[in-house]
Amino acid sequence: MDRRSVLKAAAVPAAATGLAAPALAQARPKITWRLTSSFPRNLDTLYGASTTFARMVSEATDGDFTIRVFAPGEIVPALEARDATSKGFVEASFTASSYSIGTDPAFMFGTVLLFGLNSRQQMAWLYEMGGNDKLNTLLYSKYNVLCWPLISTGAQMGGWFRKEIKSPEDLKGLKSRIGGLAGHVFSRLGSVPQQIAAGDIYPSLERGTIDAAEWIGPYDDEKLGLYKVAPYYYYPGWWEGTGILSLFVNKQKYEELPPAWRSILQTAAAATTSLGLAKYDAVNPQALKRLVAGGAAARLPAERARRLLRRDDEDARGIREGRPGLCRDLPRHDRLQAGCLPVAAVVGIHLRQLPDPPAAALTPGLTHARGGTLPRGPAASRPRPPGRSWPPGRDTPSTRQDVEGTPPHG
Amino acid sequence: MDRRSVLKAAAVPAAATGLAAPALAQARPKITWRLTSSFPRNLDTLYGASTTFARMVSEATDGDFTIRVFAPGEIVPALEARDATSKGFVEASFTASSYSIGTDPAFMFGTVLLFGLNSRQQMAWLYEMGGNDKLNTLLYSKYNVLCWPLISTGAQMGGWFRKEIKSPEDLKGLKSRIGGLAGHVFSRLGSVPQQIAAGDIYPSLERGTIDAAEWIGPYDDEKLGLYKVAPYYYYPGWWEGTGILSLFVNKQKYEELPPAWRSILQTAAAATTSLGLAKYDAVNPQALKRLVAGGAAARLPAERARRLLRRDDEDARGIREGRPGLCRDLPRHDRLQAGCLPVAAVVGIHLRQLPDPPAAALTPGLTHARGGTLPRGPAASRPRPPGRSWPPGRDTPSTRQDVEGTPPHG
Repeated sequence: MDRRSVLKAAAVPAAATGLAAPALAQARPKITWRLTSSFPRNLDTLYGASTTFARMVSEATDGDFTIRVFAPGEIVPALEARDATSKGFVEASFTASSYSIGTDPAFMFGTVLLFGLNSRQQMAWLYEMGGNDKLNTLLYSKYNVLCWPLISTGAQMGGWFRKEIKSPEDLKGLKSRIGGLAGHVFSRLGSVPQQIAAGDIYPSLERGTIDAAEWIGPYDDEKLGLYKVAPYYYYPGWWEGTGILSLFVNKQKYEELPPAWRSILQTAAAATTSLGLAKYDAVNPQALKRLVAGGAAARLPAERARRLLRRDDEDARGIREGRPGLCRDLPRHDRLQAGCLPVAAVVGIHLRQLPDPPAAALTPGLTHARGGTLPRGPAASRPRPPGRSWPPGRDTPSTRQDVEGTPPHG
Repeated sequence: MDRRSVLKAAAVPAAATGLAAPALAQARPKITWRLTSSFPRNLDTLYGASTTFARMVSEATDGDFTIRVFAPGEIVPALEARDATSKGFVEASFTASSYSIGTDPAFMFGTVLLFGLNSRQQMAWLYEMGGNDKLNTLLYSKYNVLCWPLISTGAQMGGWFRKEIKSPEDLKGLKSRIGGLAGHVFSRLGSVPQQIAAGDIYPSLERGTIDAAEWIGPYDDEKLGLYKVAPYYYYPGWWEGTGILSLFVNKQKYEELPPAWRSILQTAAAATTSLGLAKYDAVNPQALKRLVAGGAAARLPAERARRLLRRDDEDARGIREGRPGLCRDLPRHDRLQAGCLPVAAVVGIHLRQLPDPPAAALTPGLTHARGGTLPRGPAASRPRPPGRSWPPGRDTPSTRQDVEGTPPHG
């Protein structure tokens, strides 16, 4: 339970001085940070995690340390949140580490590895087996950021498809929104993977720009309204036994904070992680029940994908060669995971809402009543605050990344 | 993710005043609290949770709010921690809510119900479905305390038996250390249940005062050295799909805190919960492997116990009649749990270290190599700080509750 090697060294001098009023004055400035989120405001799970975190920090500091949360596209496009934090355009961001695998494939470790750990295992590795400290030391600090988990999503679903998938052959040629390194595996299964931010998934499916999309799980997927434009729902998301979404903080800005506030930042992040998973576990089973009642869900074939992702796989090798210090931890993953991903762990408590896996596997004729009794997502509202835009020199955020929420015609 | 109905109202005035130095001086007194733990110092999981929590609070307040943690028996016996907090003898305690079922059976809700929820489900109910707020309003505040989860243990094991259990008949006449309302069920199975604190389990088993004992799970059980005196290990602990162990705070003392510190207290508790389960998940699988390598584990029959605990059961009725406000939440439990306790959820990631359940059920000839390669627990050391003793008027803590750690002859 020793989570803070970064903090400890820095905390000593302040505690040692022990001054009263002047030290207080110096130690408690008034600071406002900007935190840009990769996740749209209508996802109360994810966006809610960042505002809960900000509220905890503000309350703990009597409002002296304020973190202002911005939705994607307001100041930084969704997929550029970490980069904007590295460059100091914003002090902090809330995003998926895996969005940065184009920069370095080792960023995958911070979210979850394919056929990897479930929520509890990933937290055990990050917090108790030194994983997060290693990522901060060996990876994130090289990109001028530090990082802590802010939420774990629980097991993820396989996603929404416009057409039925009867065999792995049906994945061929499919343009699919799929996160992280799983896209590489999908491409070797013949699919055409795309990295698309949450708010852009719905319009891309509706326009037919993509044929399939995985996002997170029942509750969030329902909020984005994906069932309306891609009726076939599959599970499990074998590439995300959990999804850790993280707080990234600019390293210099972090080091400028008084030690107490650095501690508060980390404590609030760990607290938010706990509450966030509780939220998912409270809302996902009911959402899945609604989705299944409106149509059906079936199992996505994973065996061939698993074969493609053996230890000698090129992606795994790419990660290992790039970051040997991190990859020495792979045996720890194996130990936690005991070799393979159990479907029960992947879909967690969702499983009981679904048809029995063996019977449901590739059941023909899965249909989803379009519209039905399912709730409609809220209309998009995207305020544009004044101020600098990101990246510097670009006047408006790119079309693909700035759409927030389900569009009004959804 | 709205965890703080208690806090919100109180936090408004402080934020509204917005004064600088004088407000700070008033808002940031120097306070030291005493927190008495029910869990001995050699359990680094549990005792570690309370010291981690205290460190977070201290760091967040620049050391102005110090929480001093006491081991059981140092100032208050293990099983009287909550009562001492209610009476204001200590400001806080870290204990199992279920230890107070003698006062009111509804205290069981705060730990976990029999055949109840697993760790994630219990957290979902407590934090996201209003469970903890309800407990604070309807139950705890009547006993002059407020309470938040401080750790969840993950799924618990069935415990250690001095003799092999081949059928439910073998439970008859067994004197068994078993927690909470499960003892009532065990008594109807013919067993003689006892509530005994962690530090007293080993000597009680060794002296033959009891024949069996459940504590928590592999790592903690190994630390207490139980395998040395009761070689038959059974699973699952169907009465504890998780065990939430809680921070209890004296209500008046809590209300006297500045709003920022109340917030810090809750945030640090939620953070500790996150890290504590990660710790268990990091250490339990390996501990179980060691225990299984040194002997064996087998499944404890649960069907008869489950039949005894139907909805019309007297214990359940006792809880419902006592606390109708809380028991209206039982359908929420059912919804989370979908009717019955899956063994896979109970034993969580431990399961894979164990023999296949159906094959292992009631395997004859389970033996455990006494001593073997298993590590020895540390010798007991029990400093006695000067000062008042608890309960007032009693000079030394009772024999049964003040033994901390594995005795040196273990």
